[in-house]
Amino acid sequence: MKEDDVINLFRDLIPSDAQDVKLSIGDDGSVVEIDQEMELVTVLDTMTVGTHYLPSASSNSIGHRIFAVNLSDIAAMGAKPKWAHLSLSLPKLDKLWLEGFIEGFKPLLSEHGLSLIGGDTIRGPEMISLSIQGVVKKDRYVTRVNANNGDLIYVTGHLGSAAFGLHLLKSDRDKPEQFIHDFNFPTPRVNEGIFLSDFASSMIDVSDGFEVDLLKLTKGSHLGFEVNIDQLPIKKEMFDCIGFNQSISMALSGGDDYELCFTIPSKMKNTFERKWHERFKTKISMVGMIVESSNNYKYNDQNYTVEHENFEHF
Amino acid sequence: MKEDDVINLFRDLIPSDAQDVKLSIGDDGSVVEIDQEMELVTVLDTMTVGTHYLPSASSNSIGHRIFAVNLSDIAAMGAKPKWAHLSLSLPKLDKLWLEGFIEGFKPLLSEHGLSLIGGDTIRGPEMISLSIQGVVKKDRYVTRVNANNGDLIYVTGHLGSAAFGLHLLKSDRDKPEQFIHDFNFPTPRVNEGIFLSDFASSMIDVSDGFEVDLLKLTKGSHLGFEVNIDQLPIKKEMFDCIGFNQSISMALSGGDDYELCFTIPSKMKNTFERKWHERFKTKISMVGMIVESSNNYKYNDQNYTVEHENFEHF
Repeated sequence: MKEDDVINLFRDLIPSDAQDVKLSIGDDGSVVEIDQEMELVTVLDTMTVGTHYLPSASSNSIGHRIFAVNLSDIAAMGAKPKWAHLSLSLPKLDKLWLEGFIEGFKPLLSEHGLSLIGGDTIRGPEMISLSIQGVVKKDRYVTRVNANNGDLIYVTGHLGSAAFGLHLLKSDRDKPEQFIHDFNFPTPRVNEGIFLSDFASSMIDVSDGFEVDLLKLTKGSHLGFEVNIDQLPIKKEMFDCIGFNQSISMALSGGDDYELCFTIPSKMKNTFERKWHERFKTKISMVGMIVESSNNYKYNDQNYTVEHENFEHF
Repeated sequence: MKEDDVINLFRDLIPSDAQDVKLSIGDDGSVVEIDQEMELVTVLDTMTVGTHYLPSASSNSIGHRIFAVNLSDIAAMGAKPKWAHLSLSLPKLDKLWLEGFIEGFKPLLSEHGLSLIGGDTIRGPEMISLSIQGVVKKDRYVTRVNANNGDLIYVTGHLGSAAFGLHLLKSDRDKPEQFIHDFNFPTPRVNEGIFLSDFASSMIDVSDGFEVDLLKLTKGSHLGFEVNIDQLPIKKEMFDCIGFNQSISMALSGGDDYELCFTIPSKMKNTFERKWHERFKTKISMVGMIVESSNNYKYNDQNYTVEHENFEHF
């Protein structure tokens, strides 16, 4: 069984007919009505050593990442984060480790007005679950499934940097340091997500890899994509280090970027881009378009076949 | 470090000054304001094989218990459960195991109007986290810290039965079956908890053991307890099987009962008991009283020293 099969099994076996549930299992988060004006968005993500981070990872980075990953899910829903609950399973309770862990996520709490208000600590295998609750104005949450034919596909920041950073870490290299930082301390695009709830027809965060995540969005919307390889935002230093093909492969399938991928109706392009740049310094790139069916890549207006390079995984 | 030290470290290092947070880290759940009339209660509990259940446990029992344990926390807050999010970490995804797991908790969803609306599945060590959100009318949640001197101490159901069931399981015995069932399929006192929000001055659920949990309540309220050993609700069959001393020890320190322990102002005793019995068949026992300080046990009005029997733990 794959993870998708598990989700389908839950959907099949469990009836979900509660009227206050607006969005259930299968998106970045769930949405329920809490009153006439607001909806509650909840996300939950779990990380474990060996699968989501290396055994050598500092508790500082682990603390930052579990919050950043969940904040990124909240961002992808267009919601404002409010409250967090943490489940911490550790083989031993070490004060220095815990202090580093807390210092790792503390700046994210103050930056985003998030309160950690509950949780659970047990002795067990090293594993961390976090749930964040956020709020969004009624019917203003953004899902994966409402892209329309002709919408423009955008992505924030750069792609592939975190995957390259992880690759460096696994090769016991510590340079170029910026990519290792991109993996260890990703920036959740929280304010950008809230802003995008006024513009985006659909949105997802790039966690599993740009191609896989964009496919979830286009499949959810029953449409396809056309992506221009030459418009993918890839840091020049990455091209310099590992060349064109490996850079493209990492950008498309690397994962761990925690950037936002979203679609904008083409007629809103100019207004959207102007308002974005008035508000944010965060880079955005228009990388393609939602099309009727099929998923394909172009390079300098020619069809392009992506050669997936294999990178050793955990 | 102990679990309490971890909670204190979090409290010390993380400022919590958000005005909408009514109750933060340290009780059975957290409480936040969501509008003028309602508050949102959130609980989060994690279980792992070897610590919270035996390697031989059926997925049916595991599925029931993770929901029952969290529903019990919701009950102890006096809240009505609404929505659940599940994080499932498993070394392999096995359809039969998952079907049993889902069938284990499905009856609890329909019984309590709870919707499972999100979560996360990863491959990793066997570990299950569940978060349940519930609602309670403004300022009507029940905490551990508001017991008053002279309040009567009550407990629902029976004590020690689950601990005895676990003891039987660890001894490879399958009788008396009722105790094994009490461990594998505890009954969360959800409707009772909601009812008690109109009467109880303080409440906690019995998860770690009656004595430990009652101590959390009296310490939180800066008071003490006087408990009458002869009033502890212990099943006759347990006395028959393991005798008086071991039964008392299991009732006081066994854990996993998921009964509610709560305090009632003495002047409300008659009204409370009458209304309880009009509404519920669930057994309640008045086992003692909140006192100014010190914690002590009586047996037939004599002071009684509890001899803690050692039962082999995981």
